[in-house]
Amino acid sequence: MKIGVLGGGQLGRMLALAGYPLGLRFRFFDTAADAPAGHLAELGVGNYDDTEALERFAEGLDLITYEFENVPVETARFLQRLAPVYPPPQALEAARDRVVEKTFFRSLSIPTPLFYPVLTKNDLLQGLEQVGYPALLKTRTLGYDGKGQAKIATPADADKAWEELGGTPLVLEAWVTFEREVSILAVRGRSGEMVFYPLVENLHQQGILRRSLAPAPRLTQALQAQAEEYARRVLLNLEYVGVLAIEFFQVQGQLLANEMAPRVHNSGHWSIEGAETSQFENHLRAVCGLPLGSTAPREYSAMLNLIGKLPEPKDVLAVPGAHLHLYGKEPRPGRKLGHVTLRAESREELEERLEALSGIL
Amino acid sequence: MKIGVLGGGQLGRMLALAGYPLGLRFRFFDTAADAPAGHLAELGVGNYDDTEALERFAEGLDLITYEFENVPVETARFLQRLAPVYPPPQALEAARDRVVEKTFFRSLSIPTPLFYPVLTKNDLLQGLEQVGYPALLKTRTLGYDGKGQAKIATPADADKAWEELGGTPLVLEAWVTFEREVSILAVRGRSGEMVFYPLVENLHQQGILRRSLAPAPRLTQALQAQAEEYARRVLLNLEYVGVLAIEFFQVQGQLLANEMAPRVHNSGHWSIEGAETSQFENHLRAVCGLPLGSTAPREYSAMLNLIGKLPEPKDVLAVPGAHLHLYGKEPRPGRKLGHVTLRAESREELEERLEALSGIL
Repeated sequence: MKIGVLGGGQLGRMLALAGYPLGLRFRFFDTAADAPAGHLAELGVGNYDDTEALERFAEGLDLITYEFENVPVETARFLQRLAPVYPPPQALEAARDRVVEKTFFRSLSIPTPLFYPVLTKNDLLQGLEQVGYPALLKTRTLGYDGKGQAKIATPADADKAWEELGGTPLVLEAWVTFEREVSILAVRGRSGEMVFYPLVENLHQQGILRRSLAPAPRLTQALQAQAEEYARRVLLNLEYVGVLAIEFFQVQGQLLANEMAPRVHNSGHWSIEGAETSQFENHLRAVCGLPLGSTAPREYSAMLNLIGKLPEPKDVLAVPGAHLHLYGKEPRPGRKLGHVTLRAESREELEERLEALSGIL
Repeated sequence: MKIGVLGGGQLGRMLALAGYPLGLRFRFFDTAADAPAGHLAELGVGNYDDTEALERFAEGLDLITYEFENVPVETARFLQRLAPVYPPPQALEAARDRVVEKTFFRSLSIPTPLFYPVLTKNDLLQGLEQVGYPALLKTRTLGYDGKGQAKIATPADADKAWEELGGTPLVLEAWVTFEREVSILAVRGRSGEMVFYPLVENLHQQGILRRSLAPAPRLTQALQAQAEEYARRVLLNLEYVGVLAIEFFQVQGQLLANEMAPRVHNSGHWSIEGAETSQFENHLRAVCGLPLGSTAPREYSAMLNLIGKLPEPKDVLAVPGAHLHLYGKEPRPGRKLGHVTLRAESREELEERLEALSGIL
């Protein structure tokens, strides 16, 4: 079976690494000729609106999936005429625009932070009255890793934020004082089978994920059940197939949905060593119509992103329980170049190993 | 870092899958253009005595290793002038000929079954007097998976065995009535660091490995210590770098060395899911001069080879704890096409899962 993947970044690379043992073959499509997945599979290069390049890409593929959420919906719909596309394009549509996404969550009775769509400066001022201070002004589309957003702490910040971001559709979001950020990875197969990974606790800095702990410390059954119920509503409504990630703020024991990603997700990388079946393998099992694998965690894991520059591999690998994942990308400030998963038999051991690793990173 | 690998079969494929996350790149060399490793890395095609093809292969490589033990020693020595070669060519030399190999074991005070070199029919008759009945007549070189051997149960079988195999250097080996077959995977790094996986119990049929249990049931510290001591002698004597496998017969609580392989080994495939660090990753860590990873087993594993024909992937994946590994090879009788690793939290659970899987294979 040959799978086409839109996007050839690290997520695609890890999909291929999980898929070869299942006997799958891969072809990637990316705008960059040096995309990391090209090291280990065929890579077609082109723009997402280049129908000729897309047709060449689709030739002989059994199905198409994506690892990049900013694939234009039109591209996915165009390809759907050539091969089955999973997850379904409506999932891209629901996730690509922050206003559409939050409206979608609310339509499923999934709580979200307060938000207000902003097209004009006047919308911004009205929005600030509604959501209060501090607030976050964000582009509705194409934002990632903290790009395309500005904090408005006091009325005086509004002008600067508008200057920075105005002119494109925006959304103003209430600043949430959360206890922590958590995320769930949910998987739905072509037969409708669903499985869920345990919630993980995420730490972001400057809008970029730095660290995940899996399972989330002090995870209660009630919280896990709430997250699974929300994820189930999304999966069913979108007739979803594949892995879906939803990020939540945890506030007074309740979950507020922040955003979702219709793909494998950085906060699920721990599952390669830390779960019985990785998110990458389960995504492939789902889109290929195979039975889903167990999401049970294997003891305790921490995932740390390597951002901007790389440590010496030998230093990382000398830490007990450390597993190194490099993406084959050129170092650049703010760029995700790899990650390390630490595994341990107990929380205490994990803390010790985290401390040892922190000295290196 | 770019690694060259002689041989492009499933072992090479699994080396590459383990090496990409370490940031390594790969180029394989094989006599077959459809070698399985070619699906996911560069593949040079040529004969092992084609020095021009070998020179092209070696260009720009940081080091060279092998996944195929019948690489001619001359090939390895030729390549050594172009890039470092690990494990060292003398390991190929020690392992390629059954008489040299057993003599080498005995020189290190590692017990082996009785054996007798056979060049002529007369040697065979003298040998049978020495080692008794039943005995095994084998080619000294190039044997694998039960090929190139004949059992001599009674004097009457000697003629037939000679007709079948005579004309090439042979060895007559005593038939060992063993309690079981076990093997150890040992790893030595470039710095001299050594680690050892727990002994596994192997079941062969028609000379082909069918199943490994890891760790070996009822494994005592004394038996593990004995195997490690023998492996240590071999590693040190050969100034070995990389993974080495030694197969033993267990007879009355003692180990008799049967053969060794200077490479990653089928009886170590369980380590992908069943150990903290897989044999493939540890081989690469060793040859790259990186710290070796923990060989600690993660609960209980069984590895089953898929030989000759493949089951339906969906049936295999529906068994809890089953991990499928397909090699991308065309089915053919007696050919290793893939393997399944079963993991479980207890021996009892493993037995149940083995039973469920047996119904499918």
